[in-house]
This record gives sequence, C-alpha cells and structure tokens, in this order.
Amino acid sequence: MKKAMVEAILGDDVFGEDPTVNQLEKRCAALFGKEAALFVLSGTMGNLLAVLSHCQRGDELIVGRHNHIHKWEQGNYAQLGGISATTLKVNPDGTMDPNDIEDAIRANDQHMPRTALVCIENTHNFAGGKALSTDYLKSVRKLADKHKLKVHMDGARIYNAAIALNVDVSEICSYVDSMMMCFSKGLGAPMGSILVGTRQFIDEARKKRKAVGGGWRQAGILAACANLALDRAVETIERDHRHAKLLAKGINERTPEALKSSIHADEKDITNMVLVTCKDKVTTSQVVAFFQSHSILFMAFDSSRIRIVLNWGVCENDLHKILDIYQTFVDSIKI
Amino acid sequence: MKKAMVEAILGDDVFGEDPTVNQLEKRCAALFGKEAALFVLSGTMGNLLAVLSHCQRGDELIVGRHNHIHKWEQGNYAQLGGISATTLKVNPDGTMDPNDIEDAIRANDQHMPRTALVCIENTHNFAGGKALSTDYLKSVRKLADKHKLKVHMDGARIYNAAIALNVDVSEICSYVDSMMMCFSKGLGAPMGSILVGTRQFIDEARKKRKAVGGGWRQAGILAACANLALDRAVETIERDHRHAKLLAKGINERTPEALKSSIHADEKDITNMVLVTCKDKVTTSQVVAFFQSHSILFMAFDSSRIRIVLNWGVCENDLHKILDIYQTFVDSIKI
Amino acid sequence: MKKAMVEAILGDDVFGEDPTVNQLEKRCAALFGKEAALFVLSGTMGNLLAVLSHCQRGDELIVGRHNHIHKWEQGNYAQLGGISATTLKVNPDGTMDPNDIEDAIRANDQHMPRTALVCIENTHNFAGGKALSTDYLKSVRKLADKHKLKVHMDGARIYNAAIALNVDVSEICSYVDSMMMCFSKGLGAPMGSILVGTRQFIDEARKKRKAVGGGWRQAGILAACANLALDRAVETIERDHRHAKLLAKGINERTPEALKSSIHADEKDITNMVLVTCKDKVTTSQVVAFFQSHSILFMAFDSSRIRIVLNWGVCENDLHKILDIYQTFVDSIKI
Amino acid sequence: MKKAMVEAILGDDVFGEDPTVNQLEKRCAALFGKEAALFVLSGTMGNLLAVLSHCQRGDELIVGRHNHIHKWEQGNYAQLGGISATTLKVNPDGTMDPNDIEDAIRANDQHMPRTALVCIENTHNFAGGKALSTDYLKSVRKLADKHKLKVHMDGARIYNAAIALNVDVSEICSYVDSMMMCFSKGLGAPMGSILVGTRQFIDEARKKRKAVGGGWRQAGILAACANLALDRAVETIERDHRHAKLLAKGINERTPEALKSSIHADEKDITNMVLVTCKDKVTTSQVVAFFQSHSILFMAFDSSRIRIVLNWGVCENDLHKILDIYQTFVDSIKI
Repeated sequence: MKKAMVEAILGDDVFGEDPTVNQLEKRCAALFGKEAALFVLSGTMGNLLAVLSHCQRGDELIVGRHNHIHKWEQGNYAQLGGISATTLKVNPDGTMDPNDIEDAIRANDQHMPRTALVCIENTHNFAGGKALSTDYLKSVRKLADKHKLKVHMDGARIYNAAIALNVDVSEICSYVDSMMMCFSKGLGAPMGSILVGTRQFIDEARKKRKAVGGGWRQAGILAACANLALDRAVETIERDHRHAKLLAKGINERTPEALKSSIHADEKDITNMVLVTCKDKVTTSQVVAFFQSHSILFMAFDSSRIRIVLNWGVCENDLHKILDIYQTFVDSIKI
Repeated sequence: MKKAMVEAILGDDVFGEDPTVNQLEKRCAALFGKEAALFVLSGTMGNLLAVLSHCQRGDELIVGRHNHIHKWEQGNYAQLGGISATTLKVNPDGTMDPNDIEDAIRANDQHMPRTALVCIENTHNFAGGKALSTDYLKSVRKLADKHKLKVHMDGARIYNAAIALNVDVSEICSYVDSMMMCFSKGLGAPMGSILVGTRQFIDEARKKRKAVGGGWRQAGILAACANLALDRAVETIERDHRHAKLLAKGINERTPEALKSSIHADEKDITNMVLVTCKDKVTTSQVVAFFQSHSILFMAFDSSRIRIVLNWGVCENDLHKILDIYQTFVDSIKI
Repeated sequence: MKKAMVEAILGDDVFGEDPTVNQLEKRCAALFGKEAALFVLSGTMGNLLAVLSHCQRGDELIVGRHNHIHKWEQGNYAQLGGISATTLKVNPDGTMDPNDIEDAIRANDQHMPRTALVCIENTHNFAGGKALSTDYLKSVRKLADKHKLKVHMDGARIYNAAIALNVDVSEICSYVDSMMMCFSKGLGAPMGSILVGTRQFIDEARKKRKAVGGGWRQAGILAACANLALDRAVETIERDHRHAKLLAKGINERTPEALKSSIHADEKDITNMVLVTCKDKVTTSQVVAFFQSHSILFMAFDSSRIRIVLNWGVCENDLHKILDIYQTFVDSIKI
Repeated sequence: MKKAMVEAILGDDVFGEDPTVNQLEKRCAALFGKEAALFVLSGTMGNLLAVLSHCQRGDELIVGRHNHIHKWEQGNYAQLGGISATTLKVNPDGTMDPNDIEDAIRANDQHMPRTALVCIENTHNFAGGKALSTDYLKSVRKLADKHKLKVHMDGARIYNAAIALNVDVSEICSYVDSMMMCFSKGLGAPMGSILVGTRQFIDEARKKRKAVGGGWRQAGILAACANLALDRAVETIERDHRHAKLLAKGINERTPEALKSSIHADEKDITNMVLVTCKDKVTTSQVVAFFQSHSILFMAFDSSRIRIVLNWGVCENDLHKILDIYQTFVDSIKI
C-alpha cells in the first residue's frame, strides 16, 4: 500500500485534476451502480455531505437512535445543517420498524417540517454488524417511494453486508439513493471514504465538501491506497467473516456446560464482529480484565456484552492465541 | 376582556416600558415561583426561546416524539437553532420512560453532542390531556440533576395539570428550570403566552425574542387580556374539567350495552379533553359525519379516536345538545 | 382605534380563518401591487421571513452595513437562517453604490455561496429618512435581473418614501420582489407589519412564520388597528413631513448668524425626521441636556447629530414649544 | 517527502494516538508560541474550526470583504455556524481600516449580535501577498483588547509574512489569539494545515473537527510530509521571494520605455506573488493568451492584473524562460 501511495499520479483534486482520484471515483460509481462518486476524508464527512445534499432548511430526516449518523457524529446534521430528525428505536437486527418509519413521516402541514430522508445503516454497527436483508431494503424503498422520500445508506461496511447476504454491492445500492462506504477500518486503507449517488447529488456534495473544508489537493496519495483496498475487498472481508465464525464457534466449544448460560458468543448472522454476552456467573469486566492481563484489549460494548472486531490486522494465529486465553479463563472460573 | 384591552396603560415593551406587560410578567414570576417572566406572542415562540436560551451550538435536547415541541413546531429548535434532539417514545400517560431518557443522555465524548435539556409537556396534548404526576416530575428532576441537565416544561395547559393533580402551579414548576404557559386556548385570551425561569434565562430569552422578531411595542393591549384570563384561570379550568367529566360520563351512560365494546369515552384522569374510542361496529368517521350533519364539528384524533376539547366557549347547554345528538346517533345504529 | 379593536370580527389566523386579517392582507396585496400579503407581528419578523423565504442554505444576501436588517436585527438571517451576507457601505442618501453591489455578486464557483438577494431600505432610517429615488430603484432592479437576484425592500416607512417622491406605493413596489411595511411607528397602530410578494413567496413566509412562533390566533384585534392606520396613512405621513419641514426651517431661522456653522438642521429631501448637526461651538450632548432640562427627550443619533422623529403624537403646538426652547438655547450660547 | 510518508510511525489520530501527528502538533505549538495545535485537512477547515470555536450562536465576526475566509470559503461561518459578519473594505495593503473595525463593533444592545472576533489575513492573498506590518498587528490587538474581542489570523502564508517583515513567526502570532497555516501551497506538502491557540481553544476545535468529518485515522502519513515541509520552510519561502523579485525586476527591465505606462510589475513589498498591471496598449487577456501559446498558464487576477505565484515547483530556469517569452511578447507589440 505504501508503494501505491508513492507511485500515485497526482494533481489538484480541488480542481478535479487528480487522475488517481478521478479514476477511483469513476470505478466506485460503476461498482455501486450509481452515476457518480465523491472521494472524501471520512465516513462522518460522507454522511454529513449526503444529508446536507438531500435536505434543505425546513427538511427533516428519520434515523435510528443507535445509527452511527445520530449516535457518533455529534448531531452534525442539526448542529451544522439545521436539519431536524425523528430518531427511532433500532431493533436487534439493525432495522427500524417500517411502521415506526411511516408513523414518523410528516403530513403536509404548516406546523411540521417536511420529511425528506430516511437514513439506514448496513451492516449495522450497534446491532453487532448485522446485515439488513434485501427484503427489508425493498420495504424501506417502497415506503420511501410512496412518500417521495430519499434513502441514504451508511454503508461503511457494505462489503460485509454484501458477503453476508451473498449479493453484489450494486444490488444493495439499488434500493437507496445514496451510499457511503469506508476504505479504512475493515478494508485497511489509512483513511478515506466514498459517497455515491446521482450526478446532481454528487455535484451538490462536492460543493458542500468545500464548505466543510474537505477539499483536498493531492488526494491521489490516499486514493491510491483506497484503490488497492478495493482490489482486495472481497478477499479481506471474507477472511474477517471466516475468522469471526471461527472465533465465535471456538468460544462456545470451549465453554463448559455449567457456564453455557453465563457466557455465550452469538453465531447467528455473524459478519466481522463477535458479540459475547455475559451474565450470572460471568461479568464483562471480569472477561476484559482477564484478557488485559494477557495483553489483549477487548472493549465492553454495553453492560452485558463484549464486542470483538476482526480486521486485516488479525491473523489465524491470533485467533488461536485468543481461544487459548479463553480456555484458561473458563478453567479459572469456580463453577 | 375587550374593556380590559381598551383601558390598558401602554408603553413600548421593546424598551421594557409597557407597565401592563411589566406587571403581568412580575405577577407570573411570583405565581409560578420563578425569578422572572417574559410575555411572548405564542406557545411556539415561548418554547423556541426556551430551547435557544438553554442550548448552544453543539448541545442536544431530549424530547418525546409526540410532544408539541417536536411534533407541531416544525423542528424549529434544529431548523433555526441548530440543536439536535433524541426523540423518545411517549407513553399513553404522556411520560417518557426514565430509562429511555437516561439511555439517551450522551457521554462526554468527541463523537457526541452535549445533552443539555429535557423537554416535557404537562398536561400532555397528544396523550389526551393527561397530567404528569408529581412523582414523575420528581424522577425527571432527579435524573436531570444527576446528569447536570436543565428541564423545560411545555406547560401550555399547566392549570389543567394543577387542577387535575390538586397542587399549586408553583409546585409543578418547582421541578423544572423553565415553563411556558398559554393564555389563549383554555384560558380564553386572544393570544399570548408566558415563559418563566431564572433572571439570566429570561434575559437571554428576551434577547432571542428580538432575533425572531417577537419584540412588540404596545403589547399592553394583550397583556391586559392575559391578566384577566389569569384572574379567572382556576374557575375557567375547573368548569372545563367538570364539563369534560359530564360529557364522558353522559356518553357512556347513553351507550347501549351491545355497543359498549364498540364506542367508549375515557373517564380516567380526565382534564379538559374527552377521548372517544371507536371500533368494531362504529368508526370515527361515522361519528364525525353524524355530528357534522347536526352542525357540530369534531376532529378525528387518530384512526380510532375522536378528541373533544372543552373550553370557555362551551356552556352546559351545549353539553346537553351534544349528548342528545349522541343519543340519536346510538339509536340509529343497527345492533 | 380602540373602537376598531373592540368591534373587529375575529377568527383563528393560524388556520387562515380570521376575516379581519384576511381582509387586511387582501387590501395590502392590492395596494402594493403584489399577489399576496402576510400580516406579521413586527418589522423584524417581516424582514426575517422575507430573507428565509428568498434564501436557502448556501445562499448569500447583499445588504447595507447600516440597513436595519443588518444593524438592528441581531444578524438573525445568519444566526437563525444560516444565510451569509456581504455588507456594503451606505451612502448619505441611503443607497449602496451599484458598482459595490455588482462587485459583491458571487461567481458560480464551488468556493463561493450563491448570491440570491439584495436588501434595500426605503426610506433609509440611518440616512436620516432619505427616500431612494425611482431611478435608483430601477438601476437596482436592472442589476438584479441581470444576475437573476431577488430584491427585498425594508419599506417600514414606504409611505414616507412615496410622499417624498410623489409616486404611488405600488410604483415603488414594482421594482422589488418583496416589501415589508410597518403599521406601528409613523402610521400609529400599536403593532403589526405587512409583508407582500408573490403567492408562492407568501406561502413560504407563512410557513416560516409558524417556525419562528409568529402564528397568532385572534390577530384580528390588531388587524383592525392596522386597517385604520392604513385609512389615514397618507394624511398622517403628509402631516409628519409638513411638521418636519416646519421644524427644520424654524430651527435654522432661529439660529443666529454667528452659530450657523455650528448648528444646522438639514432641510434637503426631508421626510419625517429632522437631523441637526452640531460642531465647533455646540455639541450634541449640550443640546440634548438643554432640552432634557425642559422635559423634552432627544436622541443623539451619532457623535455629531441629533435626530428628531415626527409622528402622530406630535401636534403643531409641540413644534412651537420645541422652537421656543430652541430660541432660549441659542440665546444662552456665548458667541 | 514520499520517503517521509512511507517511514512515518502511525496510529489512530481520532483517539490522539498517532505519534507523528502528536509530534507535529507539539512542534507547531512551540514554533508559533501557543499552548496547543491541531493538524487539519485544509486551510478552509482550519479557519472554519477557528470561527466555530471562537463564536457561539448570537456572535458576530468582522472580516475583510476580500479575505479568503469571506471570499473563498462559501460563507461557511454563516452557512454552517450561524455566525453573522460585518464585512469591511480591504485596502491595497491587505489591511482593514481600524476606524472601520471600531465602527463595526456592536454595542451591548438587544437589537444587535455580540461582536466576538476579528479575522485578518497575513500575507493577504487578494492584496497580492502583502504582509501586514507589526504596527498594524499591534493596533488591531489593542482595539480587540479594548473591546474584549478575539483575533484570528488566516496565516496560510505566515512564513511569507515573517520573511517579508524579517521577524519570527512567533512574534506575528503574539498579536493574535489563533492562527492557521498551510503546509500545502508554498511549503510544498501534498495537503494539511495547522491551527494554533490556547489549549481550551484547540480542544474545542478538535471536537468541532469531528463534527465536520475532519477526524482522520492514520494522518501520520500526511503529518510526516508536513514536518518535512516545515524543516525547509524558511529556505523554500526565501527562494520564492527571491524568485518573485527577480521576475518583477526582469519584467520591468525588459519593458521598453514606450510601454512602461501600459504594463508594469509591482516591485514594492513583494513576497511570493508578482502582480502585473496592464492598461492602455496592453490587456491582461492579451498577455495570458500570448503565454498560453507558449504553454505557460497565467491567471487573470482581475480585469487589469495578472497574478504569478511562485512556489517550490518553479526553478530559476523557469524564470529565465518566462522572461524570454516576455521579451518576445513586448517585442511583438506595435508601439
């Protein structure tokens, strides 16, 4: 990847003259089946530009209360964009109930903002990386069409969704008006995200990118890395999913019968994350502390769950090491 | 009331020189147990000034999805104020679940806005005029203190709450940092609302009032009406509640046994509204149409409920007339 | 006027059902030659709704640095509306230099906002009430058309302009897309302003009025006063202009030769304000203090000028009284 | 520089864990004499974060009408931040008249926003790269202190100013509260800018950076380039200034007497830009076209001036080539 950076052909992207960026944007538009694409610094920036481009003053969006856009992006759509939101409950599978969505859509009434956008997330981070089914995507699309709304997908991990659902990324994108994907995190580039949509939408997003200070000059350095990350995307993500399954299975196999109701790794619809639920005889802080004493850092996801995220930096040997430590851990529990 | 308008002593309220306004503000501050008060054009303006004064750029508020502030004020806190919101489910009694509130409060984290304010509504309009119990108000206050949040109450109908709970309006206000009450609607003034809180809060709200174009010159005309409405507030609201109880009871008494499961007026914790639920053999549109043919306009509240709001314009004779028409209606239903 | 208030036929203006308001809006639309009108609480609110309706996020307006919209309305177009502005120098006659305006219009460039609106003021308050000539209005209109911009006129005192220019108010309005006029101040109503423009513009402004909390229920009380103020507008304003001329002339006549270069009332293009310039042997604070000791309050406009505003509360006797005090004042100056 | 990128030690800057970024920020804080620094994607982002951190809702800034912050950053301070601005005339030397600044500062009045910030630019781009004298900086500081305002300097080219004034960059920064400098453009890094100020200010800016989507993970790649650019900054900029002087002098030397009043390169207070004024016998478009036919692209700065910006990509040979073409150009003019 460092080689790619060094060899990248550069230009000034502010004037649309960086060939490496231009090539990446063209490639992504084709890949995701949209008219145009914009290479941006981060997923948060991509999402912000999307909502600013879809919504004007007086518009409202609908978003899951635990979606990244609402939960971890500082409410920037309101703070900087003046866009109001109705925030809805997110189900354990990452969906918002279509009835809740429909109930949140505003009537044409002077007391109300105009509902303009629905934001979904796929795979859904806070739901432990669950992919939204194509049936669900179809139902959201149908609802949006009925009420003349746009749909934006935070697809930071869209490759995880595509591989989990065994469909092409372009099929997933066919149900939404715009989509943002990250080259960093799972795909392994140092930074950068892509936003896709219609030509007009991307033109608007490009202008808004300038307003937030996201115009970058010789971005080709980073576009070269993104390109490389994309070349290996399927391979990378398939490996992460394989690793996650191995890990979850390994944990459950090593859990003695008497602890099975106290500690359990979710194996259903797994993507690149393993969620380990602790209760009764085992607490999350106990597990985190034990692994920390063996120099492995886990993050408590909430009061009863630990989340382990697999990525390109984790090899099969690491999995064995984790499972060995886990074995020592369960052996140490007085049942 | 027209006499009061004509006889009001006037001055320029923009410069704080209208004696009738000043007297009203002083009276309200004392009445609601707060340091200061601001006379404003409308409930929506009072609520907007409250959130603008409590919250700065980067702050977030928590509000019920069906509270007036979110539902019927155009998302103005975000549209004009750039304040983000987490919107929560509202229970049938007008409360938000304290656990939901606590879950929505943000951590001190650069990815998150700062939660600054909780907005409650008392009585709760969309919940059919239910008063929030003092126990609930205490629990919200406790939560807010724990997390250093402010609480604003949309108390458009605070007199209805006080009479339903049999407590003083100042006790209700003691649990919140700011409160807005309307002189129009139930109290019968042609327009105008009051916002109360600390001196510093009201100074800020007064400045923001100028920004939204709410500064008014000879507002004493309207303050005189507000004063009069306040003189009669308890009497007015007690009559409305008495009427609502009479109406609900009268409806249920006139409903034949065979229809009792199809049409029913809620008599529990009633204030100034009667909610009539229709199902099976009776539809809301059927009821609305029947009364319309007798020149009485009812509003379908949602797909299964009709809401009848009592106010100073409805006298006891009107109730008898409504009940007579209702009798004719139920008689006409083939059971 | 109090009689008019009491006799007004009322309804709920939030639902467009107040006949007195509807009649006033219809009358004003016809009077100013526009499709539609909106009755609002204040001039500041009217101006704010106008800029919010003309400009969306990413738009910019051009305005004089000493126009009321920029100088005395808290920068609300930016604060609440997110609209940027290029502020220009205002000439002594209330105009902005057309070259300055053209220079401030933005190119179609991703680094720039889109210039959408030019705001002018007529008569211009800070310029001492000078009326903008129809030639100037034509040149601004031409510039706006060339660059596809809208023009909003803060016409708080448009009747003063019409009478000074000896043209109809509708002719003045023919050069602008929208105009706001105040019923208070010169015209003598207790409060209220009117905003006029196309039907679509007014519909948008009506929706925004709700967002700022400017929806008012039984506004007919105030519309009745506005109607009355309008009936007498020409007569009222002609009298104010006559009074201003009398006062300015009287001051200059009473000024002894030796003080003529030290204190002087502007008599050129006078409307309803008299600007008295003090220098050398006389200071503004000296004049203000002298009149105050005779129980008359004058306002120092800036470091070298006093502004005296004539309105319906000032009768001819008052003028004589002021001139007598002035005589005493100049007599007291040691030359 | 590519070597530096490849060898950079990386971490996740969102969590403050990228050692190369941390080292760069520490270095810049020391270099510019401030408590703290923040590495950001672009100059526009640095300026935006500065104004968002200095100003809250209801605040106003004062800025030159032709400063980059107002002219080429889409009015983002208003569009995204809701901050109003009074824009002032910029003199040919890049200053705003201190009297204009003082006149634009708002009184403490409910009709007015609170003036919070003065924005200056050094060297001033639109003034052709003129450095603001330390006397001027002192006078602005004094004014700001008197009125309790902050001063932000767009110091994209602060090294050009320091070298032109023959003072240290830290002295220039001592007169302002915050300063933004660009590593790209003159200094030659592919992208990235630095913002400096107090610790509290930088903490706030860091949080706002997250809101605009400017958080970057492995930013060390770019910080390594910035570090290198900084190592060579003085040398680079001195060379550019030398080149600019050579070029301006060379142009004037080659201009025949008969054309001296028609085409002239400004040699006074020159930094890294050469401004060539054309009139009478020569037009800018003529010059631009001639050079274009020799494969050199010049930019018409305005209707009568061409701006030539020197940077690390221009070597002495290039200067000779330009001067030779210029010789051919003047020879071709029929006098």
